Amino acid sequence: MNETATRLAALRAEMKRAGIQAAIIPQADPHMSEYIASHWQARRWLSGFSGSAGTLVVPAEGHARLWTDSRYFLQAAEQLEGTETELMKEGLPGTPSIEAWLAEELPAGAAVGVDAMLMSVGALRGLRTALKARGIRLDTMFDALPAIWTDRPALPKCAVFVHDEQYAGLSAASKIADALDGARAHGADALFVSALDQVAWLLNIRSRDVRYNPVATAYVYLGPEGNILFIDADKLDADVQAYLKGQGVETRPYTAVKTFIIGLSTQRRVLLDPASTAYGVLEAFGERAVEAMSPIAMPKACKNEVQIAGIREAMKRDGVALVHSLMELESRMAAGEAVTEMDVAEILRRKRAEQPLFFDESFGTIAGYGPHGAIVHYEADEKSNATLRPEGLLLIDSGAQYLDGTTDITRTIALGTPTQQERADFTLVMKGHIALAQAVFPEGTCGTQLDALARQYLWQHGLSYLHGTGHGVGHFLNVHEGPQSVRLNYVPAPLTPGMVTSNEPGLYRAGVHGIRCENLVLTVPALDTEFGRFYRFETLTLFPFDTRLFATEMMTEAELAWVNAYNSRVYDALAPMLGKQAREWLESKTQSI
Amino acid sequence: MNETATRLAALRAEMKRAGIQAAIIPQADPHMSEYIASHWQARRWLSGFSGSAGTLVVPAEGHARLWTDSRYFLQAAEQLEGTETELMKEGLPGTPSIEAWLAEELPAGAAVGVDAMLMSVGALRGLRTALKARGIRLDTMFDALPAIWTDRPALPKCAVFVHDEQYAGLSAASKIADALDGARAHGADALFVSALDQVAWLLNIRSRDVRYNPVATAYVYLGPEGNILFIDADKLDADVQAYLKGQGVETRPYTAVKTFIIGLSTQRRVLLDPASTAYGVLEAFGERAVEAMSPIAMPKACKNEVQIAGIREAMKRDGVALVHSLMELESRMAAGEAVTEMDVAEILRRKRAEQPLFFDESFGTIAGYGPHGAIVHYEADEKSNATLRPEGLLLIDSGAQYLDGTTDITRTIALGTPTQQERADFTLVMKGHIALAQAVFPEGTCGTQLDALARQYLWQHGLSYLHGTGHGVGHFLNVHEGPQSVRLNYVPAPLTPGMVTSNEPGLYRAGVHGIRCENLVLTVPALDTEFGRFYRFETLTLFPFDTRLFATEMMTEAELAWVNAYNSRVYDALAPMLGKQAREWLESKTQSI
Repeated sequence: MNETATRLAALRAEMKRAGIQAAIIPQADPHMSEYIASHWQARRWLSGFSGSAGTLVVPAEGHARLWTDSRYFLQAAEQLEGTETELMKEGLPGTPSIEAWLAEELPAGAAVGVDAMLMSVGALRGLRTALKARGIRLDTMFDALPAIWTDRPALPKCAVFVHDEQYAGLSAASKIADALDGARAHGADALFVSALDQVAWLLNIRSRDVRYNPVATAYVYLGPEGNILFIDADKLDADVQAYLKGQGVETRPYTAVKTFIIGLSTQRRVLLDPASTAYGVLEAFGERAVEAMSPIAMPKACKNEVQIAGIREAMKRDGVALVHSLMELESRMAAGEAVTEMDVAEILRRKRAEQPLFFDESFGTIAGYGPHGAIVHYEADEKSNATLRPEGLLLIDSGAQYLDGTTDITRTIALGTPTQQERADFTLVMKGHIALAQAVFPEGTCGTQLDALARQYLWQHGLSYLHGTGHGVGHFLNVHEGPQSVRLNYVPAPLTPGMVTSNEPGLYRAGVHGIRCENLVLTVPALDTEFGRFYRFETLTLFPFDTRLFATEMMTEAELAWVNAYNSRVYDALAPMLGKQAREWLESKTQSI
Repeated sequence: MNETATRLAALRAEMKRAGIQAAIIPQADPHMSEYIASHWQARRWLSGFSGSAGTLVVPAEGHARLWTDSRYFLQAAEQLEGTETELMKEGLPGTPSIEAWLAEELPAGAAVGVDAMLMSVGALRGLRTALKARGIRLDTMFDALPAIWTDRPALPKCAVFVHDEQYAGLSAASKIADALDGARAHGADALFVSALDQVAWLLNIRSRDVRYNPVATAYVYLGPEGNILFIDADKLDADVQAYLKGQGVETRPYTAVKTFIIGLSTQRRVLLDPASTAYGVLEAFGERAVEAMSPIAMPKACKNEVQIAGIREAMKRDGVALVHSLMELESRMAAGEAVTEMDVAEILRRKRAEQPLFFDESFGTIAGYGPHGAIVHYEADEKSNATLRPEGLLLIDSGAQYLDGTTDITRTIALGTPTQQERADFTLVMKGHIALAQAVFPEGTCGTQLDALARQYLWQHGLSYLHGTGHGVGHFLNVHEGPQSVRLNYVPAPLTPGMVTSNEPGLYRAGVHGIRCENLVLTVPALDTEFGRFYRFETLTLFPFDTRLFATEMMTEAELAWVNAYNSRVYDALAPMLGKQAREWLESKTQSI
């Protein structure tokens, strides 16, 4: 029960020993991953909060605090209950930044400890500058975990396998050559890659080291000393070793990376991306470091023709799995069976697993019924698991990893006859979804500039959602990837042809219901005029929106036409892959509104 | 004829003496003003280009280059013709940045010279970092002008006068107290103000040192040593001197400022805004500098109740002046008189000057007929001056300084029966104008996030405009002010109640016509909900849009209703101030569409 109290006490003892008045424990690994292996789940171990984002700050005196974003406000409040840790709701006007809070709590001249291997270059510099302005020193060598975390999980040891070029579209050797060209364009003669999805993409290898993310724990160095994969040797079988050798890649132990870096010639100029490199790694490179955006980020985000063709096929299979899932859900409910949120997740997993080239889910299914739908990253457990009734809204956000593509789709479904409020809310969300889906925009436009198109109708009614509107999606890789993003915060990466991005506005009424409507979209060329080059989105996801939820009186003719054309396209794409009963079911779900 | 060649040769001689391989001559003064007194018009003197924005780069060998933005592409091309200087079109995909171009042209180890007093802290740091990465050194002490500019205009010497508190709404003494509080919030105990409009706003003083900008050339220091205005004494009469003393402000010579800074206690902590402070000033402060956004920027931008009431009155007078101007234009054209673009500017100036509290124009009137309308910052001269005919579009962008407010309005008017192309283009621009005018948005939203609302309909057709959609407007001050801005580039300042901002989408077809539709809007509260606080815009400008130019078949009911409600509101506001004939004229111009 009071495990976290014992752990925090042990941490505070180490802080005292190190002469530190507060410790920052980020949710991070040395690869700056969004989702991390349990070996690095120190924030969860110390606080009890299991969300994928959030930073714990432990002062020597006074309560610990956990900063997390709106997706996790409800979950964090629940998980922190009964512990000393207080929730700090990021993004709300009254919530101080971590720096501001520390400045308020600590005396001038105090020291704050953080492990430089668990914070990116950009984040650590920002933190140091902000604390310095407030007279607080930052100790970047504070790593108490080896001393206090006695039952710490080992480093992940999953086997690596090759992602065949028939799916990847390009060989590792050619990607390596391009990446080195990209580094040279910045005056560097070498490249160091920390981001696990960049490592996987670059070498066409995959593993299962992080749940739902088919990556391997590794670093890559490309340079005159050779192209070196730093990885634990027992993860590689003979075939993979031969494959890597064939692509011109040698391997060294994962833990040998720091010694290698420090031993490099001081003349070496190594490109590092400050956004995805730990500050501790940058420090090791020292004067050798050339900071620039990774030359891998854009080629990875902009899918090639083979990848795009694969994604289109994966979307069909995913749509078929969803048809079968929803049919089973409907028939079991119609038969009077008590179907729960966890059952929904089980059905989806089972139906997707029946599809060819299925590898895994791409994240834990969110099946939120009624008020649970308003918990943005809800995942039902034995305690919360709600039984569905023939009324209200069910929000299902789910996705899969197929060898030829990654999917991520959210549908909000009426389980009974929808109320006027449910229809109005749903329609405002869909009007934004449609506006973004139909946007045309000039070359160079970034997601921040388009975000308001998805929010404008909600804003007119004083409604909003606090999460982003769209994230990049990898190809048989992480379901969240950069560099592009459609969100309120400024993210400069331009939306470029080949990028796959989600379009997922939502609306969450706490205690009532949650709505999110998500498709993946591909950036494609639209027009070339005297005013320049213009792009648009092509929607990739193939599953109908629930026609019963549209308040057609709130929609324009163009919006109605978009919905009907989309649902009709879904029918045309999926029908040939369905049996008679499923085809009829889909036909009934794709009638014009 | 070849004046600029002689001048560039003199500059190159100085460059050689200083050991510099290229010189950067920005359009700037030591106050980081957008519009500058002739004393600092070195870029114009050296290149012949008279636009308000653009940077000249002079290499020791090879042609000089002028970087300027899309507003000035046509004007610059014309003015640079016959000189060595080549135009570099900023913002087009093929145009290198100044740094990239220098790196291409100069050998590694070369030195580039610039005068640190003519570049902001942020700009100079960015330049230095970019050049350093390319192996080029920056010499920030290069000021060749005293040696080569023999007929340089003197520093401006216009008389200063007090802007009465009945218009300003707050006393200088109270603003000074608030500004010092703002500096203290950043840990500073003093504040240094370089921006001329901030100096004018802070002390409630005005002058005519910069054309159209009612500012005085001066710096302000607020701190334990006193509140000091650095200004040439002969600009202040006895009344103004007494007023300043009464507000707790002493004066010292303008040229004494650097000596004063260097002599300050090294313990002093002085807040400087890197965006509006010359790098040379920051260098003088050295370790004393605390860099932060000026505590004056937001209070100046967010107008108080007295200012807002004044602006509303100024808008009525400006609307009346426009009614009289357009009536005169119409009747003279109807009488067969040859009315020119310069006549339009003259009429507007005369009619505005008849209004109470008129002080000056707020910028040079742009009256662009037909193809001239496509030159975004066109100002007719004797050579270009076109005679209006009863066909095509006339774009008029003009504004005034009244003691109680600053105006800025653009109308595009059909001089004959508009063509379908003219109506379609105008309507796409107006649909964006209306979308922005009707936007509701949450607290914290910045202009970059709303910009696409104004562009979306143009983008759908592969059309665009390269200038910003909206700029802040001062109160009896500069017609362009920060910190807010509605534009493609990211400007983080949130749109906050009391801010006055322009709403001015446009469309420019080179050689055909230009369209711009501009009103000023006030940010006001809209809604408070469980999702937070929402704001909207209230349109301040009062003059009808040309009803003949709307292609109503392209518009929604809501858009039509907005136009009719706006034109009707204009009539209601202005009619009581008009004689019978003008009232009837306005009634005919504000009929429902």
